[in-house]
Amino acid sequence: MKNRGDEFSNASEPPMDWVGDWSGRRRTLTPDRTAVIEPHTQTTLTYRALDDRACALAARLADDYGLGPGDRLALVARNRLEALVLFLACGKIGAVLAPVSHRLAPAEIEALLQRLAPAVVATDSPVMEGLGDVLPPTTPVYDLDIPLTQPADGAASVNRPLSPGALAMLIHTGGSTGLPKICRVSHRQMIWNAIELLVSAPESMARRRELLLFPLFHIGGWNTAIPVLYAGGTVILQPAFEAETVLANIDRYDVNHLGAVEAMLQALRAAPNFERASLRSLEGITVAGGPCSQKTMEAFFDRGVAVNQAYGLTEAGPSNLVDAADDVGLDEQRARAGSVGTSFYHCDYRIIDPDTGQRVGTGEVGELQLRSPHSFDGYWDDPSASAARWAEAGWLRSGDLAREAADGRVRIVGRLDNVIISGGEKVAAEEIEAALAAHPAVNAALVFAMSDPRWGQRPVAVFTSDAPITMDALRDWLRPRLASYKQPADVMQVTSLPLTGSGKPDRQQARADYQNALRGRS
Amino acid sequence: MKNRGDEFSNASEPPMDWVGDWSGRRRTLTPDRTAVIEPHTQTTLTYRALDDRACALAARLADDYGLGPGDRLALVARNRLEALVLFLACGKIGAVLAPVSHRLAPAEIEALLQRLAPAVVATDSPVMEGLGDVLPPTTPVYDLDIPLTQPADGAASVNRPLSPGALAMLIHTGGSTGLPKICRVSHRQMIWNAIELLVSAPESMARRRELLLFPLFHIGGWNTAIPVLYAGGTVILQPAFEAETVLANIDRYDVNHLGAVEAMLQALRAAPNFERASLRSLEGITVAGGPCSQKTMEAFFDRGVAVNQAYGLTEAGPSNLVDAADDVGLDEQRARAGSVGTSFYHCDYRIIDPDTGQRVGTGEVGELQLRSPHSFDGYWDDPSASAARWAEAGWLRSGDLAREAADGRVRIVGRLDNVIISGGEKVAAEEIEAALAAHPAVNAALVFAMSDPRWGQRPVAVFTSDAPITMDALRDWLRPRLASYKQPADVMQVTSLPLTGSGKPDRQQARADYQNALRGRS
Repeated sequence: MKNRGDEFSNASEPPMDWVGDWSGRRRTLTPDRTAVIEPHTQTTLTYRALDDRACALAARLADDYGLGPGDRLALVARNRLEALVLFLACGKIGAVLAPVSHRLAPAEIEALLQRLAPAVVATDSPVMEGLGDVLPPTTPVYDLDIPLTQPADGAASVNRPLSPGALAMLIHTGGSTGLPKICRVSHRQMIWNAIELLVSAPESMARRRELLLFPLFHIGGWNTAIPVLYAGGTVILQPAFEAETVLANIDRYDVNHLGAVEAMLQALRAAPNFERASLRSLEGITVAGGPCSQKTMEAFFDRGVAVNQAYGLTEAGPSNLVDAADDVGLDEQRARAGSVGTSFYHCDYRIIDPDTGQRVGTGEVGELQLRSPHSFDGYWDDPSASAARWAEAGWLRSGDLAREAADGRVRIVGRLDNVIISGGEKVAAEEIEAALAAHPAVNAALVFAMSDPRWGQRPVAVFTSDAPITMDALRDWLRPRLASYKQPADVMQVTSLPLTGSGKPDRQQARADYQNALRGRS
Repeated sequence: MKNRGDEFSNASEPPMDWVGDWSGRRRTLTPDRTAVIEPHTQTTLTYRALDDRACALAARLADDYGLGPGDRLALVARNRLEALVLFLACGKIGAVLAPVSHRLAPAEIEALLQRLAPAVVATDSPVMEGLGDVLPPTTPVYDLDIPLTQPADGAASVNRPLSPGALAMLIHTGGSTGLPKICRVSHRQMIWNAIELLVSAPESMARRRELLLFPLFHIGGWNTAIPVLYAGGTVILQPAFEAETVLANIDRYDVNHLGAVEAMLQALRAAPNFERASLRSLEGITVAGGPCSQKTMEAFFDRGVAVNQAYGLTEAGPSNLVDAADDVGLDEQRARAGSVGTSFYHCDYRIIDPDTGQRVGTGEVGELQLRSPHSFDGYWDDPSASAARWAEAGWLRSGDLAREAADGRVRIVGRLDNVIISGGEKVAAEEIEAALAAHPAVNAALVFAMSDPRWGQRPVAVFTSDAPITMDALRDWLRPRLASYKQPADVMQVTSLPLTGSGKPDRQQARADYQNALRGRS
């Protein structure tokens, strides 16, 4: 079946040498620049050395495992240099990299591997110890811990011309509701995502020193690392997010940019070495993976580091919207940090009333829709979900609610799926969360719908706090800030908020936890 | 008839808002940066102001002239701000800009306008005074000298979604042999050319202050100005190349980059204010339009300004090959300045033996062929010439001879058309020219074929010199430097070398001048 995304596949473009040869092109253009630093293994690679490894691995995958164009290679591992080399090697031989989150439950990993049916699974000792049982028994395993030996000759010439529309990756999304979806991501999508970042960067991406914190099993990790390599900058990577190490590495490796989710920024701010770290080199932080509260950003603005918010989804980018710093000072950036700015250069957006299908007016809430050369090519094994993603004329439904201010800046209001309909009125769960989180004593809040015999649904909130606070005080806080139908039916303090594997708030889990707590209460 | 270039047209890509909205996107992203400075009219425009003008002109072209998608608008004028605004306005309404060189003879301009059959001709007083007769009498004229008045309302919203494959321009080539060819240049070609420059720039293109010297009737002018605007930099433009003004403007406007042909660099070096100009801000000069002699480049390296050579053709780019400065010092750049480096990131090249169709070995000469997303879409009214341009699998024949050194650097050796076959041996006219030009007393040389009863053809050379030099001394100079069959049959000193309209050496004219001179001698 032809997905509607195929209209973007540019299948008519002839194969070209450069398309899959990400490291080879940089090796030719900037051989001596530093490409990757991996502190905990004390490894530093120039683009020449990185490409040598990619060539050696490409030759090995082709010769020893028989991998060729379109063959799938699954990757289950924590962030490590070899994961990047694997992407580069796959590009050279036209193989498709399918990263699978090692954080999922064994049964979830097993199910994903069954759907992907990879020709090879690349993994390492920690994963094999924990998950050895779920790896498909008949599928060859490539052990990332075994050092690559350089083949005797000819490795440098490994490269196969690819069409820009050729598949580069199969990337699963968070799967907070039901089965994870697997997105078909072409080289074209990866290239255009990288171009977006390059065109928007206030300074040259070639001098980026980017600390990679996003995991390499979601698009965010790849769209942080690959654009920097594309531009000739430096990627610094560590095996996992660990706040104290992150702060130390920023200073030690002159990191000038990093991307993070809000929870990471909260952990950095709370780390014992936060005040001690100089952060001298750090020019900017991009927060993605969900709206970030002003409170979290303030700690970094106070240290002279600009924080801006980006928005994107695997299906449409993820280089979709960003509040690019441009030339304005820190104060103006701070003042407008609540929005996700506007779309990247090559990304169209529109905000549509889900009921009427028409564009909403300025200030009104509707579904954000996106159109760009970096749309995905549909889901891996779900043609009906693929078809449902596209509206007419190349527009892709984001499923997110957004509002455009008079100055053109866009705010993400919530998920269309998280809209609670109470007595016929629509309430965005995220709007209530933001009102709660603005209270000085509240760290974070989560809101979900509970069914209600009278109103159909009513919102319920849970929140975390380090300070003593009464429910009455919170209700007094909310009363002037939210319409009466938006007031939560119940507000409960919890010790922590549940997150999905991709670090986003898990409202389903929060609802289940709340129901358990209610049973405990009664 | 379907051109073979159509395989690149991506007609399946849906129209998108950003494609033709070059100034609108920048206005959104970086409204307050300086986009254009025109010293002689004392005009400085931010991106907001530039986009206001483009919107006003787009509305005017649509409303007053009825221009819409695919309609052609011819432009006959010297470089001026309004030419850039015209490009931006055409993009917004999907019209196609067709610049025609004002330097051509009236009959040539007339013939080009007949072939283009534009809906409107945009021009200005100097051109109308000189060429009023050749403008098509029934075609409306848009006078670039009349200031644009801002329409009452709604102008800011003028923009029409375009497919990346939509035609942006019709650009004629030099036409040194026979009729000028008219190239179909899509927005996709313009965008990818710009991306090439952005990815290769050692520093951010957003801080470029580019002095535009190339005329805006060839692709080189457009591919200098538009990428800078795409990236958010500043373009400084003057109506014509005038060496003293150029040097003064470099210092006055902190120009950090310019592109030029060799003849311009020679004129700058010879200008009375060359030594006086500080050139403090100037970081680099890119020479295009033909190989540049080491001698010409030295004067700029001596002043601390890096000169690098670029290579490209309208049909394939022109962002094809460049010796990008990267991170190496001035000395290394100087040492390797004789080559055109390697291809831009997204451009494949190969060197093919014209007789066998096979790739030649390292160090051997063959025809350079190119493959990239910035190929043109065929010639305007010449399907057979279009078909002849493409080899198989998207490869485009350049018609130029090149050689790749062991270090991967490419040198352009000459034109396939300029190969002189003497006694069955192939001689590149440009190789003899380079050997002559290397003589300390020779400024420049031109070599062409004269028919010869015994050898079929023999090379003949003309040269310019400011110093006294005997023919015998020159012959002694050439003897150890060129094989005997490459030795010119005659060498003649002339006062100047003829150039084509695009500033390239005109060998046909040189041959005709030589024959006239022979008749004068006898």
